[in-house]
Amino acid sequence: MSDSGAGTALDRAATMAEVGERGLLRHLRSRIPLGPGVLVGVGDDAAAVETGLLTLVTTDVLIEGVHFRREWGPANLIGRKALTVNLSDIAAMAGVPRYAVVSLSLPADTTVEFLDAVYDGLLERSAEAGVAIVGGNVACTPGPLTIDVTLLGHGDKLLRRDGAKAGDLVVVTGTLGGAAAGLNFLQGGTRLGAEGVLSDAGTWTGGAPDSLLSCLRAQLDPTPPLAFGRALSEHDIVHAAMDLSDGLSGDLLTLCHASDVSAWVDGSALPVDPCAAQLEKEGGTDGFSVALHGGEDYQLLLAVPPGAFDQLKDVAVVWDLPVTAVGEFTEGPPALSMKFGDRMKRLRPKSHEHFKDPGSRRSDPSAET
Amino acid sequence: MSDSGAGTALDRAATMAEVGERGLLRHLRSRIPLGPGVLVGVGDDAAAVETGLLTLVTTDVLIEGVHFRREWGPANLIGRKALTVNLSDIAAMAGVPRYAVVSLSLPADTTVEFLDAVYDGLLERSAEAGVAIVGGNVACTPGPLTIDVTLLGHGDKLLRRDGAKAGDLVVVTGTLGGAAAGLNFLQGGTRLGAEGVLSDAGTWTGGAPDSLLSCLRAQLDPTPPLAFGRALSEHDIVHAAMDLSDGLSGDLLTLCHASDVSAWVDGSALPVDPCAAQLEKEGGTDGFSVALHGGEDYQLLLAVPPGAFDQLKDVAVVWDLPVTAVGEFTEGPPALSMKFGDRMKRLRPKSHEHFKDPGSRRSDPSAET
Repeated sequence: MSDSGAGTALDRAATMAEVGERGLLRHLRSRIPLGPGVLVGVGDDAAAVETGLLTLVTTDVLIEGVHFRREWGPANLIGRKALTVNLSDIAAMAGVPRYAVVSLSLPADTTVEFLDAVYDGLLERSAEAGVAIVGGNVACTPGPLTIDVTLLGHGDKLLRRDGAKAGDLVVVTGTLGGAAAGLNFLQGGTRLGAEGVLSDAGTWTGGAPDSLLSCLRAQLDPTPPLAFGRALSEHDIVHAAMDLSDGLSGDLLTLCHASDVSAWVDGSALPVDPCAAQLEKEGGTDGFSVALHGGEDYQLLLAVPPGAFDQLKDVAVVWDLPVTAVGEFTEGPPALSMKFGDRMKRLRPKSHEHFKDPGSRRSDPSAET
Repeated sequence: MSDSGAGTALDRAATMAEVGERGLLRHLRSRIPLGPGVLVGVGDDAAAVETGLLTLVTTDVLIEGVHFRREWGPANLIGRKALTVNLSDIAAMAGVPRYAVVSLSLPADTTVEFLDAVYDGLLERSAEAGVAIVGGNVACTPGPLTIDVTLLGHGDKLLRRDGAKAGDLVVVTGTLGGAAAGLNFLQGGTRLGAEGVLSDAGTWTGGAPDSLLSCLRAQLDPTPPLAFGRALSEHDIVHAAMDLSDGLSGDLLTLCHASDVSAWVDGSALPVDPCAAQLEKEGGTDGFSVALHGGEDYQLLLAVPPGAFDQLKDVAVVWDLPVTAVGEFTEGPPALSMKFGDRMKRLRPKSHEHFKDPGSRRSDPSAET
């Protein structure tokens, strides 16, 4: 946004403690445009928005120190990601995102400048996705900065998690492992600068900075295939879908539970992100683990009848989006197996759980109710 | 709820760190019923709910240590209030509340038992209000326990904040100051027990425990006039409305700003909560200040054409709801005056702002964008 930080005149170095909630609210309100379909936007008891007969609603939170660290990269990317993780959920239901409310819990020393940069990202991502920010909340917290976004979308033909059938192919879009590989380097001190260049190499000693930047970007500014789920639902191609936020192994088991089926994954078929693979190779490993267990790729996990896979590829080609069959759903109680050549082994998800592993290097967003 | 804490079998003394996010989510999901109009409830990427052509949406947060303390009273009241503060916003727009999403940020040592009690209150209040909980989020936080609720409602004829006209009466529903008086005692160590009785008198040394209990209840379990705004909009009686969350003086100035008018309040006309008045009297003061500046009464502030006031009273009598004309909107830039007899003085709002006054005894919910 060229008008970065524009709004009511406030000292950009001022803190929330100095500006006060009301001053901050006036400032934020002045930055938020009234979008299409918004009858009452920010500034009343509630927003009033035009909706259809079926409305999708999802919520996801980013907590500083849990889901992001502000030193990792530009602050606007925090705002972008706070919306993107919700966009991914609406897209995975084949919905069209429409309206967002943003609830901010802010430490008293948060500056106007930092918050403006976060809002730059929120507004920029909203505009890209056709979403209007219609309201929200600001509260002071003794805890970490927290951005809780609730997103409303329009739905008609839904893609649910509970429709996978034995015999369906396990299909993923895009490539996997990029976001997790990027996170590994951020945890090691690598930093993304304001202009999309490396500001600190951290533990990074190799070549291929393009691969590194690609993975940092995948972690800090993910790009889910937002329109693809909707196209699939229109063509009635898939039986079930969900977004890959917690990692393939964890999310596939979740889908199995929702659909009451089992599944196996072919270890040789994973579409490992080539940049992640290159980074891992320089570290002496391969990208297999980050692709299988790493979260936050925000790609789609699909259950596709084998006869519909070619049609799926035809739809995906419009977006230049890779789609890969990585396994199969089978009869049986929810469980995962991994196939290596002729051998089949039990596969245990390694998805991150915050509570059980507070020291984890993973930063994947929190679980959805 | 008689099935307090029912759900998937979990050790009630277990902490979030022991149970893990997924275990907790399974547990919470098993407690949440599928409500009317809910096509997809908790457990998918997003919920899918039936809506009309106009949907209201609001969000409000309760943060431990800022908006509540768990030692103040039974934990189920925290859950009730987290929904009630949002119900009040939808009601103030003349809407019908329908669907809620609940985003929980939890310290790792939160027990299943405590969370179950909070959810008891959420589910109980939802059932009372005809609201279905359709989704949400659970995340671990190094900060305080935070309950962020977003509420969707159905709207048609809206009551907005920006319609007050010079000459309209300033009208409030119910009585004022009860919640703020209750907060004063909670801050002084008074505690509400599980059965609605006093568990600790704190600084309270007087008689009239019924008045004290009434004020504690007003703070911990507010009861906004949820259906009244809707009745008013159907009769087309009022020009503007908002809920009284930050206190009359602060909220009236907000309404003046939204409507670009000025207003005066008659100091002798305030409907001081009789229980608050009695408590304040025992402390050697009167209830005037808590009624004028105290927040969280969750009553309605209305702009009413003088000729419609009798009709307003006729509607209110159905709910046995007091309605009081406390002043008048006038021409002029947004500002407040206070009338004492023949004298008119400038009135400055004393509403709480978290950032500017972190040591404040007020606990009023955060400002709305």
